[in-house]
Amino acid sequence: MPFDYITELLEKNNKKIVLLVMDGLGGLPMEAGGKTELEAAHSPNMDRLAAEGTLGQTIPVRPGVTPGSGPAHLSLFGYDPIEYKIGRGALEACGVGENIKAGDIAVRCNFCTLDRDGKITDRRAGRIPTEEALPIIEKLKTIQVPGVEVTVRHVKEYRFAIVMRGEGLSPEIDDTDPQDTGVEPLPITAIDPKADKTAALFRQWSDQARKILSDEPKANFFTMRGFATDPGLPPFPEVFGLRAACVAVYPMYKGVSDLVGMDVIKFEGEYPTDEFAAVKRVWEDYDFFFIHIKKTDSMGEDGNFDGKAKVIESVDQALPELLALKPDVVMITGDHSTPSRMRSHSWHPVPFLLWSPALGLADNQDHFGERACQLGGLGTFHATQTIPLGLAHAGKLLKYGA
Amino acid sequence: MPFDYITELLEKNNKKIVLLVMDGLGGLPMEAGGKTELEAAHSPNMDRLAAEGTLGQTIPVRPGVTPGSGPAHLSLFGYDPIEYKIGRGALEACGVGENIKAGDIAVRCNFCTLDRDGKITDRRAGRIPTEEALPIIEKLKTIQVPGVEVTVRHVKEYRFAIVMRGEGLSPEIDDTDPQDTGVEPLPITAIDPKADKTAALFRQWSDQARKILSDEPKANFFTMRGFATDPGLPPFPEVFGLRAACVAVYPMYKGVSDLVGMDVIKFEGEYPTDEFAAVKRVWEDYDFFFIHIKKTDSMGEDGNFDGKAKVIESVDQALPELLALKPDVVMITGDHSTPSRMRSHSWHPVPFLLWSPALGLADNQDHFGERACQLGGLGTFHATQTIPLGLAHAGKLLKYGA
Repeated sequence: MPFDYITELLEKNNKKIVLLVMDGLGGLPMEAGGKTELEAAHSPNMDRLAAEGTLGQTIPVRPGVTPGSGPAHLSLFGYDPIEYKIGRGALEACGVGENIKAGDIAVRCNFCTLDRDGKITDRRAGRIPTEEALPIIEKLKTIQVPGVEVTVRHVKEYRFAIVMRGEGLSPEIDDTDPQDTGVEPLPITAIDPKADKTAALFRQWSDQARKILSDEPKANFFTMRGFATDPGLPPFPEVFGLRAACVAVYPMYKGVSDLVGMDVIKFEGEYPTDEFAAVKRVWEDYDFFFIHIKKTDSMGEDGNFDGKAKVIESVDQALPELLALKPDVVMITGDHSTPSRMRSHSWHPVPFLLWSPALGLADNQDHFGERACQLGGLGTFHATQTIPLGLAHAGKLLKYGA
Repeated sequence: MPFDYITELLEKNNKKIVLLVMDGLGGLPMEAGGKTELEAAHSPNMDRLAAEGTLGQTIPVRPGVTPGSGPAHLSLFGYDPIEYKIGRGALEACGVGENIKAGDIAVRCNFCTLDRDGKITDRRAGRIPTEEALPIIEKLKTIQVPGVEVTVRHVKEYRFAIVMRGEGLSPEIDDTDPQDTGVEPLPITAIDPKADKTAALFRQWSDQARKILSDEPKANFFTMRGFATDPGLPPFPEVFGLRAACVAVYPMYKGVSDLVGMDVIKFEGEYPTDEFAAVKRVWEDYDFFFIHIKKTDSMGEDGNFDGKAKVIESVDQALPELLALKPDVVMITGDHSTPSRMRSHSWHPVPFLLWSPALGLADNQDHFGERACQLGGLGTFHATQTIPLGLAHAGKLLKYGA
């Protein structure tokens, strides 16, 4: 169990901690000598917090390692992703509200298009939109497999998740996605003999699904990836003594929050103002608020430098609403870097801002940006240290030893 | 095995990584407020790389721990020297081209001078030069010990190495060097009963050697240190997916490179230009080049501040030859610090420069020196993270998790 030494020191109080994550926040200049997205963004509110607070930069997994979204968030929540591995299936299913329990097997699926010979011609079934996918999902929900309960959940567009519940199941099953076209999907095969029974059950389900889908023009089959079960993570609220709320728009981030035991808050809308309004609504019920902004990452992956800077600016403009709630500690960071220049996640350290008017460490930085964070008072630290830092600044940790 | 998480992510490409190590690079000012050797050196090429690249500083073993050359290099190569211990005997023997296999026992020996009572009067036999030592080594090669094969290899001046091959040998044997004069060499004694047989075999060899050497005026006996076997390190080329070449002048560094599975390149000469020419010759055959410059350390140990700065300048002058090969990633650092002021290795963090024109993190530093490195974008990191950082910047690592 991580952070035994923290759990021992917990002290209850009514201080509030906000962790505001702009996905893929870290960036690079587009050309030598230029500014990064965060440096270029006009963000007077964050700059004020930077001046009053303390900067630093985090390593999400290990130096040089580019994290996926799941591992990067686990790390921010205090779980070293090298130690705690979570299958994408479990994240995806949790993200659409399916509560995965120990022993349940979740898998993520993509609709695909097969030709007459059963070979894949489109790995995403023409990226069919959600409205086309939903009626097909309804048909799949009718499939029965004796001895187990199977739930099908639509995720988004051509993506869905299956959860199988029953006795003696194992997730040790290989992906069926061949990662290529012109070949058949791979058979559902156990990696370990203890998963033979589970693989056979999924094959039964899959055979029935193939018949049901055979007349579909695009989504006439599917591939399966990331068979997984509940990883049994030590619950965040117990480890850190926090009533924890997740405010996020995208399923993946709700999923990982749910897996660690946070309450996922339901709300309408997708803008920072909507998310901050949702935080306001449940402000009295929680001690810790994880707020997730997705579009910094999406813009980075699109190579849209200005767009990414604008998303940061939109968060900055909405920030006064959040600060009006008078949080005791605000931490603003990313889960990883997504430089627009690279159009992908990267391994570069992630800018970090800690604002705690009562107990902040003085440093010389007055602007929230990569180069300022490199010189910040918190130095370079592993992302798993984020929550303990927040707890400390909220006065929630007693002295270690006499 | 270290870096399982890296090995899983390896992606092959033809990008080239250079690790240029100036031994004992880190330094201190000779007086308060002064410059270090690296800061004082006129090194316009390195300064340009610093401006275009990213700086940082490494901890070779642990804060406060002064490393020997073996552990310091292991750390740079990704093997935490607290976890992987290698006897000096194995390093020395490998360094002179003796390929140590699992079960072989290697030990490093120093010729010494004994008086009539068998007491040591000179622990280095008057530092006899190589040409005097070689004929003596030839005599020692004639010694036979039943049941095992013994190889004697001259190293340099008064130093040589012995390798014993056979069944059931163990390196758990104490040094015989009393680290003092006026006393006898210590008897060859097993530390663990499982090495009793091995100790007895080495005593047989040693007794014969004592007779053979008895008429030598200076080198009439020897002491033995660092009994060791092949530590069975996970091979560097497999762990990191790199065809790796070592270009070094001194045996010790060839030894540690050989132990981790790099190819040791043969070449003539001892200057940076000679080493860079050797790199050029094999450029197409490898992905990773470890280049070792010894004399920064020797000058530091001699307390020669200006000499150390001049060695750095000579490397800087030769650098364009290396850069003309168009490496994709260049990392310039030391294995540890050797401040001229201390005339010894030290524990101080080691300056680190990473130049990767495609993917480098922006920082504010434009000069390669200790104080600039302290403020660099890479922060302070453990030397074992060096290779993963190089791999990432060369595009040789896939994303960790989804």
